[in-house]
Amino acid sequence: MISAEKALRIILDAVPAARGESVRLGRAAGRTAAEDITSGDDIPPFDNSSMDGFALRCADVASAGDGHPVRLTVAGESSAGNPYGKRLRTGTAVRVMTGGVIPHGADTVVPVEHAEPAGECAVLLRSPSPRGAFIRRKGEDIRRGRRVIARGELLTPPHVGVLAAIGRESVRVAVRPRTAILATGDELVPPGRTPGPGRIRNSSSYALMGMVKESGGTPVFLGIARDRKKAILKKVAEGLASDILLLTGGVSVGAHDYVGEVLHRAGVEIRFWKVNIRPGSPLLFGVARRTLVFGLPGNPVSTAVTFLQFVRPALRRMLGRTEIFPPRFTAVAEEPLDPAGTRRSYLRGIVRREGGTLRVKTTGSQSSGVMTSMLLANCLIILPEGGKRMSAGSEVEIEFLRDPAFAHDGGGNDA
Amino acid sequence: MISAEKALRIILDAVPAARGESVRLGRAAGRTAAEDITSGDDIPPFDNSSMDGFALRCADVASAGDGHPVRLTVAGESSAGNPYGKRLRTGTAVRVMTGGVIPHGADTVVPVEHAEPAGECAVLLRSPSPRGAFIRRKGEDIRRGRRVIARGELLTPPHVGVLAAIGRESVRVAVRPRTAILATGDELVPPGRTPGPGRIRNSSSYALMGMVKESGGTPVFLGIARDRKKAILKKVAEGLASDILLLTGGVSVGAHDYVGEVLHRAGVEIRFWKVNIRPGSPLLFGVARRTLVFGLPGNPVSTAVTFLQFVRPALRRMLGRTEIFPPRFTAVAEEPLDPAGTRRSYLRGIVRREGGTLRVKTTGSQSSGVMTSMLLANCLIILPEGGKRMSAGSEVEIEFLRDPAFAHDGGGNDA
Repeated sequence: MISAEKALRIILDAVPAARGESVRLGRAAGRTAAEDITSGDDIPPFDNSSMDGFALRCADVASAGDGHPVRLTVAGESSAGNPYGKRLRTGTAVRVMTGGVIPHGADTVVPVEHAEPAGECAVLLRSPSPRGAFIRRKGEDIRRGRRVIARGELLTPPHVGVLAAIGRESVRVAVRPRTAILATGDELVPPGRTPGPGRIRNSSSYALMGMVKESGGTPVFLGIARDRKKAILKKVAEGLASDILLLTGGVSVGAHDYVGEVLHRAGVEIRFWKVNIRPGSPLLFGVARRTLVFGLPGNPVSTAVTFLQFVRPALRRMLGRTEIFPPRFTAVAEEPLDPAGTRRSYLRGIVRREGGTLRVKTTGSQSSGVMTSMLLANCLIILPEGGKRMSAGSEVEIEFLRDPAFAHDGGGNDA
Repeated sequence: MISAEKALRIILDAVPAARGESVRLGRAAGRTAAEDITSGDDIPPFDNSSMDGFALRCADVASAGDGHPVRLTVAGESSAGNPYGKRLRTGTAVRVMTGGVIPHGADTVVPVEHAEPAGECAVLLRSPSPRGAFIRRKGEDIRRGRRVIARGELLTPPHVGVLAAIGRESVRVAVRPRTAILATGDELVPPGRTPGPGRIRNSSSYALMGMVKESGGTPVFLGIARDRKKAILKKVAEGLASDILLLTGGVSVGAHDYVGEVLHRAGVEIRFWKVNIRPGSPLLFGVARRTLVFGLPGNPVSTAVTFLQFVRPALRRMLGRTEIFPPRFTAVAEEPLDPAGTRRSYLRGIVRREGGTLRVKTTGSQSSGVMTSMLLANCLIILPEGGKRMSAGSEVEIEFLRDPAFAHDGGGNDA
């Protein structure tokens, strides 16, 4: 039985890098950059106005005051996409719209609400303006030649916007790792069937498909293999064509021997079996050429927890992702929290915010058979090895289970 | 100029409910339940073992001790999917695998590591066992008739697992709102073109497409309309076939008049224009029959912020989502934070964890022209209306911009 840290180290050391592929801009969000991206242009490409107003020379209005306004002739207009082509002459102003090019010769913008119309073709200014006011400078956002996105970054929607702005119609991203999912067990029937005596419906495979997708992989469901060496061997061989193979079930003490034998015969080198965690201790990990093989415990809670703690970091590492672990937060326990023996424990928790503090309690029964605990939970509470009971009021570490944008409604929002 | 709260209230009051549709289990993750889901079965469907071990009668081993072990005959085996069909007789045990049915007559499981083999067909037990140990009871996870998922819940992968477990092959979910995106502006060229003088590439539409998708909608890009009433009117009419129409640009003081006129001619009733926020104050909102129309400011930061604060909650409300706002967290300012005048301000921030505390600073320049601020940021800092400067050390409210599973690596993780 090895520690969670050691298990993770063994897994991460074995992860090969995913290949890269080119995708069109419209499909880039959610992918991982497989290249450093440098801008070939200054952004913005020209000095432009950040307000609707008048572009003018700062010097022309330096003497303006409430009792002695300066009158400037409006020589033309510069709206976004329609520049004023000429040079601005002393004593004149150009009407400029937000995003419009600042005409040559102008160095300042006065917002429309601070200029007083004086007939059709003139404005009165009643105060001086600081040079450069309301001008967005060429290259102020992105300087030509600057690296704007680094290899390994997740491409969020704003990243895709920046790619568009610098003229990239396609981008090189990491290929989604093909992740085969194989359920094993004589007891399993597909969800559409009514289970006979002693049978249950296969559920873990469906949860895994969603988790693989969320983590950046492409799930490939291989179906259910009966507990026969030949049946499992055939499916395992099929799964080894993928980047990752996830088996569920078949890793408990009784089942392990022949699943181990099957994996060995399929050319999988087992790197570890059993980790000092709960739930999920029978976790198995092996490698066959370039394929990572995980034997996940069959019950849904253990499957989900071991996926999140061990498979997801491997998937992200394979993608070349800079950040592979979710951040941890500190929360105050609202009730005493009991670890599972001396193992590192992942309790299903409900965290809420109270003022500036996160407070967490468990979902109730921490039996790994209670899959509904994963519906109630919005976080995992991680208790370290050693078996120390955490009394109510203790600070504990949590990881959110979902995007907190969905996780809970901690108050403090509008409407 | 109305407040952000009032603007949100006006928007949310106008949101119609999305229709429902049935999807197969494999496509359900990430969708919103449009029905309450009740289980027709007890889960687990029978008492089963949570360990590999021996099922026996508690009374048979009540007198067991280290010096006077009890010997039980092993009468058979019950593995997952292959129950032991007979009734357990006094003085016997049945070898049981994890998930295997507890035979009739047995009331306790002793894990294999606590039983001592005694020849081929017997075991010695050297201690008594509490009745019911290591048995998962029928219905202990889900009681038949229980509502397991409520309408309006986001279907996460564990939800999909539960649907599979209760035998649901398909589920009714909210139809993804069709969300049309129309960029307006003479200055805009597509990303593949080199912008001429005074022109820039359209970038906001690409970021918006990703944000719409992440928020549960289906983006439909209508392209770029030149600043001509006829061109915009044609595209707006096309966009009104969608559930939501997002226009970018054309809402500044200079452009507003004719965009307003176009919307009016297209049958859009404007509900508000201008909100007391920064960035994004020229936000416009209107309604045409069942279509929500948002005029978002054209520069990328304002587009993103107004989308997140005003469009995303509307999209989620349309989906019937129970939780429509992201949770807010409290963080300690690492530097003085200046609001934008007296408006509610959304600063782009970088939050990190230090011990049990979140600490936040800005990304630097808060000019709404600096779109790279959205790449650096992992949160928005929300400063209330009123214009009070927050000194370093103050507590402020933040919202994560992305799934914190990606947002930052705050330390405290393994390996």
